Amino acid sequence: MKMNATPVRGTKDFLPLEVEIRDYVREKIETTYKAFGFHKINTPIMEDIERLNKSDGGENLSMIFKLLKRGQKLDLTKENLNEDDLVDSGLRYDLTMPLSRYFANNRQNLTMPFKAIQIDKVFRAERPQKGRFREFYQCDIDIIGDKSVNAEMELIAATTSALDSIGFSDFTVRINDRRILTDMILSAGFDANEVGSVCIIFDKLDKIGMDGVKAELLEKGYGESVVAKFMDIIKDVEGDALSAAEKYCSNKDVVLDLKKVLDFANSISNGKFNAVYDKSLVRGMGYYTGMVFEIVSPKFGSSVAGGGRYDEMIGKFLGESVPAVGFSIGFERITTIMFEEKVSIPTKEKVILICNQDDDMVEVYNKRNELMEKGMIVSVLFRSKKLGKQMDGLISLGYSKACYFDTGDFKELS
Amino acid sequence: MKMNATPVRGTKDFLPLEVEIRDYVREKIETTYKAFGFHKINTPIMEDIERLNKSDGGENLSMIFKLLKRGQKLDLTKENLNEDDLVDSGLRYDLTMPLSRYFANNRQNLTMPFKAIQIDKVFRAERPQKGRFREFYQCDIDIIGDKSVNAEMELIAATTSALDSIGFSDFTVRINDRRILTDMILSAGFDANEVGSVCIIFDKLDKIGMDGVKAELLEKGYGESVVAKFMDIIKDVEGDALSAAEKYCSNKDVVLDLKKVLDFANSISNGKFNAVYDKSLVRGMGYYTGMVFEIVSPKFGSSVAGGGRYDEMIGKFLGESVPAVGFSIGFERITTIMFEEKVSIPTKEKVILICNQDDDMVEVYNKRNELMEKGMIVSVLFRSKKLGKQMDGLISLGYSKACYFDTGDFKELS
Repeated sequence: MKMNATPVRGTKDFLPLEVEIRDYVREKIETTYKAFGFHKINTPIMEDIERLNKSDGGENLSMIFKLLKRGQKLDLTKENLNEDDLVDSGLRYDLTMPLSRYFANNRQNLTMPFKAIQIDKVFRAERPQKGRFREFYQCDIDIIGDKSVNAEMELIAATTSALDSIGFSDFTVRINDRRILTDMILSAGFDANEVGSVCIIFDKLDKIGMDGVKAELLEKGYGESVVAKFMDIIKDVEGDALSAAEKYCSNKDVVLDLKKVLDFANSISNGKFNAVYDKSLVRGMGYYTGMVFEIVSPKFGSSVAGGGRYDEMIGKFLGESVPAVGFSIGFERITTIMFEEKVSIPTKEKVILICNQDDDMVEVYNKRNELMEKGMIVSVLFRSKKLGKQMDGLISLGYSKACYFDTGDFKELS
Repeated sequence: MKMNATPVRGTKDFLPLEVEIRDYVREKIETTYKAFGFHKINTPIMEDIERLNKSDGGENLSMIFKLLKRGQKLDLTKENLNEDDLVDSGLRYDLTMPLSRYFANNRQNLTMPFKAIQIDKVFRAERPQKGRFREFYQCDIDIIGDKSVNAEMELIAATTSALDSIGFSDFTVRINDRRILTDMILSAGFDANEVGSVCIIFDKLDKIGMDGVKAELLEKGYGESVVAKFMDIIKDVEGDALSAAEKYCSNKDVVLDLKKVLDFANSISNGKFNAVYDKSLVRGMGYYTGMVFEIVSPKFGSSVAGGGRYDEMIGKFLGESVPAVGFSIGFERITTIMFEEKVSIPTKEKVILICNQDDDMVEVYNKRNELMEKGMIVSVLFRSKKLGKQMDGLISLGYSKACYFDTGDFKELS
């Protein structure tokens, strides 16, 4: 009998060369974040189902993979069973909720401000499509316990450095503040409880333009005069956009801080990126409370990194408010493009040591060791009628030299 | 409201210093395996439930975490519901079954013999106890497609090198062959279908001694004469054990190969370990077909690495027999001990850059960058009444120097 060998729907096997690129990118990003004084942490993939369901995950909550209860906890004889009877835990859908829980659970052992690195797997039951998987990596840094904009500046410096370290430049950091956005919407005459849904439409400004935003707002049933006022405000906030936006924002410090961050980012960019105020930047997550940012690059259809301040989330676990801000790099997107574009990454010299089945294996081992100690990666192959095919396979994995055990001679491969 | 922040039962949050040790160990082991020409692969955590249930996992099969079906696939109105109605996938309990599936699924893109590294999470619903978790890492290398003992020798060389690279020495590699073991049991007069359960008892020889093994065999209901014969054989196979074992093994090549592997291991050990034949070594898994090995060290209560040859497993996916052999390092066990013993690992120099809130942040960034370019890890702290406490926190994470932004002076910390 032959069993089906395809991975579960929406998941993927990674080939050696893909893993090599992924590990390279991860290592470069991690090294950069560590140099900035961030510390890597590790949380379980499994989370309590109640915590997951009550978290601020927006539409992600409908995509949680749930784990069946075990043993006596699972009672299938009960009448009118529902999902809550069947599950007690699930797989995390992001790394921000687990980080908040982690901070609350380990606070007494953590240094403040706490600067965390997380590069780990998350799970979402998304409709599978090209480049979107149900099991994928997120790559986050967060600063917990710093309410000043120093935290935002640090995240932007570290994230842009990390992108630079893997060869990405010529990108744009877009920055906005939820409080400016909210005040602009309120200034137009929308109700406070309408801000969320107006944001969702306004977020599309880049794609559908002014007319599109107007049409969607009217379609949604908002009054013509309110929508017209909002369109006037949007038009007003062009050109030197931020100073115009200032008019509508009730808290002037918010604008000053945003300006400080923009100036900082442009001063450290070294020509590799630029930072701009983006009046329509929303970043989907409901938990953001202040500044939000994303990084876009002509290389990518959509954003390559995104984040923002979420000062209320950790309070849910701690029972007291703790400021927090995070920035996440689109690890899957970046590594997929690098693999498709066959970006070559630095690697040690790879050598095939060719010997015979009846050679003394201890001597072969010693020769191999001698090459390894020179920093080479060494695969041993035995002379046989399969040798040519085996060598071709290794060449495709980046092996560039053969070393003959009997003579010690080297030969370039290609 | 305050939410519970404890991780799910049997799982664990890792603190920054724990992650540092774990990453260090993982990186050292990985680098060694790569130098030996192994390639890292990556498979999904989620696996098809039918594949998991039908796999050779022994008692692990009862410890599988199962994922609830989603959407219309989940029908709770059906009568007499059982678990199979509710789940369609689960979390992998080891890395060997996924490797077999991976090999069958990607064979056309893999180089033969295929040498895989896997360092990844697996899940088992074990009864939680000290040092045993429900979510943990395994660290495996496997060679697929080499039926010769070169594969066993390569695994032993790579694994002992990896242990050496993280500072472990003075250990013993125990080796046996399931076929010798089987022939010894059959020679005593046991039936072929009794071999498995005799093995389970014989495996305990180290712990319960000859008398213990004898008592348990009799208790199990085996005939006195068969048990007596078996005890004679065990006694016979002492001293120069392997040559004695040879008498009972029907296939002399099996003993020659084992001897070859033992000689090889002892020749390359460089005094750091020794390799011995262990007549009672079983290694639990039902899928082993030939040589089995484990590594024990006085530092550890039980084994620190284990593996063996499993020539039949991949055939279940491919429909044709493919030889395979693997070796697994007890990653959790090793890193737990290193953390408890506060083993210090090499790290870059860690510096605290101390500045004032009103310093120019671009200049602070440039100073930090200058230090980072010298290879230092740099955390910026601001003068405030919290500074002392914050510095103590960083000192506990290995920060050894302060650099004062205003003067550029360095000061040793302790």
